[in-house]
Amino acid sequence: MQLSNRVQEMQFSPIRKFNPLAIAAEKAGKKVYHLNIGQPDIETPAAFMEAVRAYEPKVIAYAESGGIPQMQDAIIGYYKNIGVELERKNIIVTTGGSEALLFGFLSILNDGDQAMMAEPFYTNYNTFALEAGGTIAPITTKAEDGFAYAKKELLEKSLTPNTKVICCISPGNPTGNVLTLDDMRVICEFAKEHDLWVMADEVYREFVYDGRKLASFAQLPEYADRVIIVDSVSKRFSACGARIGAIICKNEELMASVMKMAQCRLCSSTIDQIGAAALYTVDDSYYKAVNEEYCRRRDTVHEALMKIPGAVCQKPGGAFYMTVKLPVDDAEDLLNFLLTEFDEDGETVMYAPAAGFYATKGIGKDEIRIAYVLKEEDLKKAAYLLGKGIEAYNKKLGK
Amino acid sequence: MQLSNRVQEMQFSPIRKFNPLAIAAEKAGKKVYHLNIGQPDIETPAAFMEAVRAYEPKVIAYAESGGIPQMQDAIIGYYKNIGVELERKNIIVTTGGSEALLFGFLSILNDGDQAMMAEPFYTNYNTFALEAGGTIAPITTKAEDGFAYAKKELLEKSLTPNTKVICCISPGNPTGNVLTLDDMRVICEFAKEHDLWVMADEVYREFVYDGRKLASFAQLPEYADRVIIVDSVSKRFSACGARIGAIICKNEELMASVMKMAQCRLCSSTIDQIGAAALYTVDDSYYKAVNEEYCRRRDTVHEALMKIPGAVCQKPGGAFYMTVKLPVDDAEDLLNFLLTEFDEDGETVMYAPAAGFYATKGIGKDEIRIAYVLKEEDLKKAAYLLGKGIEAYNKKLGK
Repeated sequence: MQLSNRVQEMQFSPIRKFNPLAIAAEKAGKKVYHLNIGQPDIETPAAFMEAVRAYEPKVIAYAESGGIPQMQDAIIGYYKNIGVELERKNIIVTTGGSEALLFGFLSILNDGDQAMMAEPFYTNYNTFALEAGGTIAPITTKAEDGFAYAKKELLEKSLTPNTKVICCISPGNPTGNVLTLDDMRVICEFAKEHDLWVMADEVYREFVYDGRKLASFAQLPEYADRVIIVDSVSKRFSACGARIGAIICKNEELMASVMKMAQCRLCSSTIDQIGAAALYTVDDSYYKAVNEEYCRRRDTVHEALMKIPGAVCQKPGGAFYMTVKLPVDDAEDLLNFLLTEFDEDGETVMYAPAAGFYATKGIGKDEIRIAYVLKEEDLKKAAYLLGKGIEAYNKKLGK
Repeated sequence: MQLSNRVQEMQFSPIRKFNPLAIAAEKAGKKVYHLNIGQPDIETPAAFMEAVRAYEPKVIAYAESGGIPQMQDAIIGYYKNIGVELERKNIIVTTGGSEALLFGFLSILNDGDQAMMAEPFYTNYNTFALEAGGTIAPITTKAEDGFAYAKKELLEKSLTPNTKVICCISPGNPTGNVLTLDDMRVICEFAKEHDLWVMADEVYREFVYDGRKLASFAQLPEYADRVIIVDSVSKRFSACGARIGAIICKNEELMASVMKMAQCRLCSSTIDQIGAAALYTVDDSYYKAVNEEYCRRRDTVHEALMKIPGAVCQKPGGAFYMTVKLPVDDAEDLLNFLLTEFDEDGETVMYAPAAGFYATKGIGKDEIRIAYVLKEEDLKKAAYLLGKGIEAYNKKLGK
């Protein structure tokens, strides 16, 4: 009795790795400011639970494998608003964006194939790729360049004979990097030239700041045949626990393949779909208010972080994450110190060390990812504690 | 841009293949009795929606990757009642039994590996195995033997050097075959001898008739290290649209692997878990009433089917399916005839042709699967129409 090779290669989440230390610190009475998790505190629009409460089925029955019609139609309506025409056959509702990613990889990767992707990247891509027999070929980006990667020369360096797809998260997790529509064109042109799929994870699409325009790979109809959109209600509507996402694509052959797997797992949650469809009835003021809230938080935490001598972080253009370079030798060691030795008036701070977000070994050791999903005063305090902690840590090491 | 080999090998669901013909028949005004689908009409206990309606979160947040504590504890309580001691670490809540199967296969199959399984079998196993790079090695069983397979000689015939696991659905879909605890021992002993995992899909566990005792592979502690239980609320509580299942295992290495994949996809639906946990508060009278209802339906439909000259079907011991051998050359052709040419007073009947449930090509062509999830009078009428249809079909063919 052995386990498969793929699961032996998988890692536990680097985001959750330090949880036991945080729990111990909290048990010992310390207050920990959590910058490590991407669970927003923004309220889910009431429309979700209202629709769920109004649902009175005698039997909670299977939904259609591709999604209930009102969910598909809600998605069609949303895309129409951003200038993208879809039909139901272009949409398969999935169990979160997560299942859309898995279906995407299972559809296009063979054993040994590679998915290109800018690093640092959302670490779960490693696991999804492994589940489909593939690996991630990283495009290394830098804090100093704002983690930009939509450059032909840079993309070419990471291309291998086994590359089948280029994956883009925009706005990005963990960097907050935002692709413009022109950037997306560069990437699609590169994909076309090398006969690659483009998998576009756009679950943070609304969260772009400083006058940036919402941009989607779906807005480039000339590349529609190779573009697979991964979407979700989780972040858009602060409804992470409702496991409703979608895979959206105009390539009929790909969608037929995804449908085989969708039929196999029967359906996504019927009740979550009923609630999620109702989320799309919120008006524009909702999107605007949430965008402004995150933008304020970004400004607040960026300003506070930049007071830390030696910290490097260009103000990110989107999402609710930042990857920050710190003036320390090892961000994992620092986190260990913050959770087990350091406090100021009984308080400390937690983040996700960024090394785990890189596929290339040995880089990102001095970087961290923070999620600015807390209220502003907490973000300020957390950044302040981080600065104090770094000071104490480097002093301890004699630096 | 190509699709992966695995998705090209996958089939669309044979259960859903004839849906377009049924839809056309219904559009043309025919009444179709659907014996083809396993969506029960039994009401979901009210506890589910009551718990959901009482839930008033500000933010619908991620659940724990392994499941919310009250869901895990509900499962622990249920198993205690059937004599099985579990801890939370033995349980990972999954998105339906479907995800438990996928996690199981991904954890133990490498490319080219095989899962042994009695055929005819629930066809989605083919797709789940392909998703993990494996295939199903069938153990061929027969209607005349009641589809029994817990015999060492029979199992040995299907064993290959690549066999990693023996999969058992008991009570069975599509045959209704039930393993006794002694049968389970035979299978586990065989697995031990050949160093195999045992994947036990027991989602129909409560539905055993004629004084048979509920039996579970989990009740054999001496084999606990190699037994993976796949469980679900879908059939037990007639809550198929609530996508809540579980993978249950005492092998810590296996559960650590599953946890990596569970963390990767973040969590199962928070709201469905809240509803599903409440389902386990129903009292024993619920299980008893549902069991009796299915038992009556089985008797009714079996009696009616046995009136068809030449039909072969031992009365199944469990679940709510029967695989029936018909006096026809080809059950797919017959179904085509029933949906496009035949009717009696504007009514006809639909079933799932069983050939698609076999991995061995060419067998099962004269067999069908029926699901007895309709009320008794409809089942009687459906069986009557099937008999009349066979008569007309064979007459047309000059038999």
